Amino acid sequence: MASRLSAVRQLTEGLAAPLSPEDQCIQSMADASPVKWHLAHTTWFFETLLLMPHAPGYEAYDRRFHYLFNSYYESLGDRHPRPQRGMITRPSCEDILRYRKHVDTAMLRLLDGSYTAEIEGLCELGLQHEQQHQELILTDIKHALSCNSILPAYSKLPERPDHNPVPLSWRNHPGGICWIGSGTGSFAFDNEQPRHRVLLAPFRIASRLATCGEYLEFIRDRGYERPELWLSDGWNFIQTQNIRAPLYWTKDQDEWAIFTLGGLRPLRLSEPVVHISFYEAEAYARWCRKRLPTEFEWEAAARGEPVTGRLLQTGSLHPEPAKKGESQFYGDAWEWTRSAYDPYPGFKPWSGPASEYNGKFMCGQIVLRGGSCVTPADHIRPGYRNFFPPGARWQFSGIRLAEDA
Amino acid sequence: MASRLSAVRQLTEGLAAPLSPEDQCIQSMADASPVKWHLAHTTWFFETLLLMPHAPGYEAYDRRFHYLFNSYYESLGDRHPRPQRGMITRPSCEDILRYRKHVDTAMLRLLDGSYTAEIEGLCELGLQHEQQHQELILTDIKHALSCNSILPAYSKLPERPDHNPVPLSWRNHPGGICWIGSGTGSFAFDNEQPRHRVLLAPFRIASRLATCGEYLEFIRDRGYERPELWLSDGWNFIQTQNIRAPLYWTKDQDEWAIFTLGGLRPLRLSEPVVHISFYEAEAYARWCRKRLPTEFEWEAAARGEPVTGRLLQTGSLHPEPAKKGESQFYGDAWEWTRSAYDPYPGFKPWSGPASEYNGKFMCGQIVLRGGSCVTPADHIRPGYRNFFPPGARWQFSGIRLAEDA
Amino acid sequence: MASRLSAVRQLTEGLAAPLSPEDQCIQSMADASPVKWHLAHTTWFFETLLLMPHAPGYEAYDRRFHYLFNSYYESLGDRHPRPQRGMITRPSCEDILRYRKHVDTAMLRLLDGSYTAEIEGLCELGLQHEQQHQELILTDIKHALSCNSILPAYSKLPERPDHNPVPLSWRNHPGGICWIGSGTGSFAFDNEQPRHRVLLAPFRIASRLATCGEYLEFIRDRGYERPELWLSDGWNFIQTQNIRAPLYWTKDQDEWAIFTLGGLRPLRLSEPVVHISFYEAEAYARWCRKRLPTEFEWEAAARGEPVTGRLLQTGSLHPEPAKKGESQFYGDAWEWTRSAYDPYPGFKPWSGPASEYNGKFMCGQIVLRGGSCVTPADHIRPGYRNFFPPGARWQFSGIRLAEDA
Amino acid sequence: MASRLSAVRQLTEGLAAPLSPEDQCIQSMADASPVKWHLAHTTWFFETLLLMPHAPGYEAYDRRFHYLFNSYYESLGDRHPRPQRGMITRPSCEDILRYRKHVDTAMLRLLDGSYTAEIEGLCELGLQHEQQHQELILTDIKHALSCNSILPAYSKLPERPDHNPVPLSWRNHPGGICWIGSGTGSFAFDNEQPRHRVLLAPFRIASRLATCGEYLEFIRDRGYERPELWLSDGWNFIQTQNIRAPLYWTKDQDEWAIFTLGGLRPLRLSEPVVHISFYEAEAYARWCRKRLPTEFEWEAAARGEPVTGRLLQTGSLHPEPAKKGESQFYGDAWEWTRSAYDPYPGFKPWSGPASEYNGKFMCGQIVLRGGSCVTPADHIRPGYRNFFPPGARWQFSGIRLAEDA
Repeated sequence: MASRLSAVRQLTEGLAAPLSPEDQCIQSMADASPVKWHLAHTTWFFETLLLMPHAPGYEAYDRRFHYLFNSYYESLGDRHPRPQRGMITRPSCEDILRYRKHVDTAMLRLLDGSYTAEIEGLCELGLQHEQQHQELILTDIKHALSCNSILPAYSKLPERPDHNPVPLSWRNHPGGICWIGSGTGSFAFDNEQPRHRVLLAPFRIASRLATCGEYLEFIRDRGYERPELWLSDGWNFIQTQNIRAPLYWTKDQDEWAIFTLGGLRPLRLSEPVVHISFYEAEAYARWCRKRLPTEFEWEAAARGEPVTGRLLQTGSLHPEPAKKGESQFYGDAWEWTRSAYDPYPGFKPWSGPASEYNGKFMCGQIVLRGGSCVTPADHIRPGYRNFFPPGARWQFSGIRLAEDA
Repeated sequence: MASRLSAVRQLTEGLAAPLSPEDQCIQSMADASPVKWHLAHTTWFFETLLLMPHAPGYEAYDRRFHYLFNSYYESLGDRHPRPQRGMITRPSCEDILRYRKHVDTAMLRLLDGSYTAEIEGLCELGLQHEQQHQELILTDIKHALSCNSILPAYSKLPERPDHNPVPLSWRNHPGGICWIGSGTGSFAFDNEQPRHRVLLAPFRIASRLATCGEYLEFIRDRGYERPELWLSDGWNFIQTQNIRAPLYWTKDQDEWAIFTLGGLRPLRLSEPVVHISFYEAEAYARWCRKRLPTEFEWEAAARGEPVTGRLLQTGSLHPEPAKKGESQFYGDAWEWTRSAYDPYPGFKPWSGPASEYNGKFMCGQIVLRGGSCVTPADHIRPGYRNFFPPGARWQFSGIRLAEDA
Repeated sequence: MASRLSAVRQLTEGLAAPLSPEDQCIQSMADASPVKWHLAHTTWFFETLLLMPHAPGYEAYDRRFHYLFNSYYESLGDRHPRPQRGMITRPSCEDILRYRKHVDTAMLRLLDGSYTAEIEGLCELGLQHEQQHQELILTDIKHALSCNSILPAYSKLPERPDHNPVPLSWRNHPGGICWIGSGTGSFAFDNEQPRHRVLLAPFRIASRLATCGEYLEFIRDRGYERPELWLSDGWNFIQTQNIRAPLYWTKDQDEWAIFTLGGLRPLRLSEPVVHISFYEAEAYARWCRKRLPTEFEWEAAARGEPVTGRLLQTGSLHPEPAKKGESQFYGDAWEWTRSAYDPYPGFKPWSGPASEYNGKFMCGQIVLRGGSCVTPADHIRPGYRNFFPPGARWQFSGIRLAEDA
Repeated sequence: MASRLSAVRQLTEGLAAPLSPEDQCIQSMADASPVKWHLAHTTWFFETLLLMPHAPGYEAYDRRFHYLFNSYYESLGDRHPRPQRGMITRPSCEDILRYRKHVDTAMLRLLDGSYTAEIEGLCELGLQHEQQHQELILTDIKHALSCNSILPAYSKLPERPDHNPVPLSWRNHPGGICWIGSGTGSFAFDNEQPRHRVLLAPFRIASRLATCGEYLEFIRDRGYERPELWLSDGWNFIQTQNIRAPLYWTKDQDEWAIFTLGGLRPLRLSEPVVHISFYEAEAYARWCRKRLPTEFEWEAAARGEPVTGRLLQTGSLHPEPAKKGESQFYGDAWEWTRSAYDPYPGFKPWSGPASEYNGKFMCGQIVLRGGSCVTPADHIRPGYRNFFPPGARWQFSGIRLAEDA
């Protein structure tokens, strides 16, 4: 556990390393957070849930941080207003690194020798929590950099040799009673539980993600101008926000380019389309005369697949075209499902402060599955439920089609 | 069919009869519509979907009405902006009644003698559609009248002898594979179909609706001030809207009163609580250490019950306390479920203009079941799915509790 | 005074007469009020400021009206929310006419025989106040009718024989010390006082109002697309509101039409342009390489002119082209000046409730002068200061140019 | 000119020196700008208006900066959106300092030897412009730091020995014809010109600024709760923004504290009240049964006073109590006048890009006079017209009373 703690904590700091103190400080919208806030908040999580109650003699690094870096835990007191996180110029990045070291030292001391199962559980939760923020560090800084008119890059991305996309084929699933949800053997969030049975009708699911080239056909066929393709809320969304292409797509003359973590690059038709809202995914599927899979269909189909793919550790930082034999169930892009984020039968939130972790968000959101190119590889699993409001576009969110069998 | 047409159409006009032309003209919020707009829109529905395509030689009453009274049908052309429906002072109420007569006459001619199954189906749809608007006429005018500082009544309501509420008990359901959805034998909306099987875990469901007295206990226990009882969106909702009680409740000194279609009246503890949002229903359930039923649980439990109760035809126009033996599954109050309004497996929207009827709203809404005191009695059925956004409060929406068995 | 009271009160009711109860009930924006609200509010003014304190034994018609029909008098208690005035379907139009008769009867009784100077003064204020609302009845209903997609007319307007506009010429004024403001000999609002001296530089002022034809040249010269012609707030205003022509102008193919109180009519180039904001007037003047006059220049120039013109009593209800010799200083269109609405030196608001009449609005508004085609003829005078926010467009507001000599 | 250039430019950098790169990067509201943006924009001003057109062979440092650091000059092309200035993490602070050096070097080369009067004039404008931004650097960073929950200080402020305030007395002015505006002998902005005569009535003006102690009496007398004291817009402003004290005042138990550039400090009753809106100044004056002076009265009264006081160079960075004999016309606090920001008679904007400097803002703003504790001492003069919207509170804006004689 101690070595895992060190590895996860160091990875976080590594993600921030290419960024200047200014880069790390800003907040480009209320839904995103500054990089340095992520660094501090994940540390606050260990300090507040683990060290304060469980490490005898632990001294808080700075009690004001409990106010600054609480995200949304009502039971842990008042907090700095969310849309104002970009105003926290002090403590500085350096001071936050000292805070991290202070907490890491105390954590390693706590984990030195024997410790209770409760401590182990909370430590695991803290690490899983930090991994979620690793992904957010990258999606949030991507959005922030895109708000600078000169479009700076986060870092130089690896060369990406192009190739034609694998043709899309359809996988049959017989339906029937399927087990859904994560069991109790290894770590899972409360919202993935309890494991339970669901009765599914037979269905077919696409063999890979939808590509930019395929999505471009939708655009060219006036997909953004035809109300009959859209959910009512979706039509309203693209009208009022004046949306005519995925986020980060720009058109100069007739040439499309996209903003990536490596800066602006020509659009590559073969790679998976990402940074679309649920509404766009749903309209695209209708245009294809298909539909999105439910989260249950997705899980039933993905259970047999290896949990590998272009995840954070590959360093790609951008989705890649499916290679032959790749299903892309894991990595590359989070996949919007046709399932609202409702509680599973028998769902019980965790107790204590962690009760606020997932349950209170079970309204108005849509489930995404599978992880993206910036999801840590040891963080994703078949039962993992990610969730965002239907209009969210700044995540690496993409499309897998399905249809009734 | 002809006599049913006459009966439904007359009932609509009867609902408008107690109201002055001014009352019928106004729109109190974008979600509501003027009474006279309902009268005209339901007529436009028959004219546009039935008479124009199917009645040879039919002459439109006034082609400008096709613009004024289209609600949201993109395939039927542009339309008057929804939030501006209250600006339609002309045509007058009288002219709209002439429009109704013109269309009714043509409809009766069409139904005189033999007609195709398509015409029969569209006529049935027109009547079911009109019944939905009968309910909206009453909920919309209730809201409109409540915006007048002098709080006028829609009509004098019948005397309501009070009695103690029936004690709440719990009904067991064994779960298992249950049939959900409406079949094809009689009319049902597309969103209730296809009938399909769902696997349920055992559960318990309350024997009646929650009462005002029970809800008042929640208020007195500071339910509106404790964030741990609320969904995140719900807590935000009641803070930003400054909500501390159900809609139409007012407090003078220490006495609660509620605004009804009969005017302002003292709160009666024994009657079902209504005019609450999903957020309030959900928080109340958590405070009770219970939960809301899913729409599947509700349907499984309600299938065995008689489809009777305080519905529109009883003239009550307000929910009543459950009498001994009454389950209140039907009538009195629509019941918020813990189910987002997602498509059923295999869902296909109707074809033609009616394809926009239900499917395009399947996002961001919550399913309600069972009908209310202003739902026409012959309009409700076990498979009926009503839906509203989680913050909607102007419908007669209430609470039935459930729990895991 | 009694006969004047009757005449003014009857004129008001005459203005409402062509309108149905529905027409009279609606409110098309927060800045406008329903016609029937105007009828009731002007009556409330007499009842509250005159009858309640000064008529022994007077019985209020309905005390709830004191809440419903108070406009903005903080000292007279709470009131119905301004944006919700369209929700007052009850009292009905008929009931409000009864209210008017009740108050008129009491007023005539009060004025029968001798009465104090205070009563005379308050009665005069009540009548001047009612005349202001006569103008608003027409501008507010024009806006309301324009929000109905079928664009109904208020009434049939008289035939208007067209003729070429009088050529625009320039009148010289020598400047110097000029008396500004209304004296104490006859009625004037507090904001026109005290009469005082202002030192003016020599200037020139246009001999008539700007015409639609002249304004159309500004549009054709891309006036709405060139930021250098606009105040910063004005440029922002037309961008965010998407304004490209005066209010009520519409273009079908290449033909301009305008909505008038008589319905939609082809644009007549010779008539004065109206329904423009201060921003548009100011930009137009800059495009002409001229400027707007200050309110002091306007008054100095207009003092010598006869107070006649196309005012309400002519029945035109729309501005007309200047005839030979007509200066149009009075009537046709209110003229935006280049003067913010600041207090005059030595300004003192009236005492009592009337202290809220004018003074508290002296911020963020622009002075307009001269009266319009819907201003009562005996209501306007050289010193009269009207005022609206710079973005207001629903009044009959137009342009007179000026320049330095 | 060269040495003055160096001095002004160095002072700007000195103001930024106590701040970290993060501090310099953030933008706390749309009206404010990041410190580093000020550093770059003032440099862009020299580059764009002087070096590009007038320095042969000058090479722009980075052409992308012309987009990033244009403030509002439409004639100089499109620009980075104002509310997104805080997103400019790159160029870094260091890079902007290099940009400053690049431009300074070119400027000094241009000023080395003889140069035209046009160049001299533009250089003077560039320096005056930079001085305006020196003040904004301090007011904007004060606001930004106040948005951090831990309330960090900009720098340690000097000790401020307290003393009782000088009693307020009244200075008589006889009125008459007074010269207003700045002449042509030395630098003045176009909005201060032309110098012209104004006729004033006799008046009295306060001998010093209003103090915090005096303002506290207004608060204690329920000044923020009495609508009769407020302009209509002002009352609406304090209700909707929930304002009950000047900006930066906070109350803990019964003790008031204020946030200063030196951090949070106990309220000192003797010092001038600052950070109030025009609305608050105007209401306070009414509560005192006085009024605010017009800008003409202010200038007539201040012309005889020495242009000295607590200005930027004193290093106070906060207003101080008036000492015996001090009138405080200059320094300490900008003084809200009762004058809307309208053009002077004969006003002509400068030609070229500088035409957008002042004239296009002459609407919806209020004139302030006299300079504050963060205004450069050689930047202020009797004719100087500052202007802000009536609700602006983040400047060092205060109150001087006046009354009719």
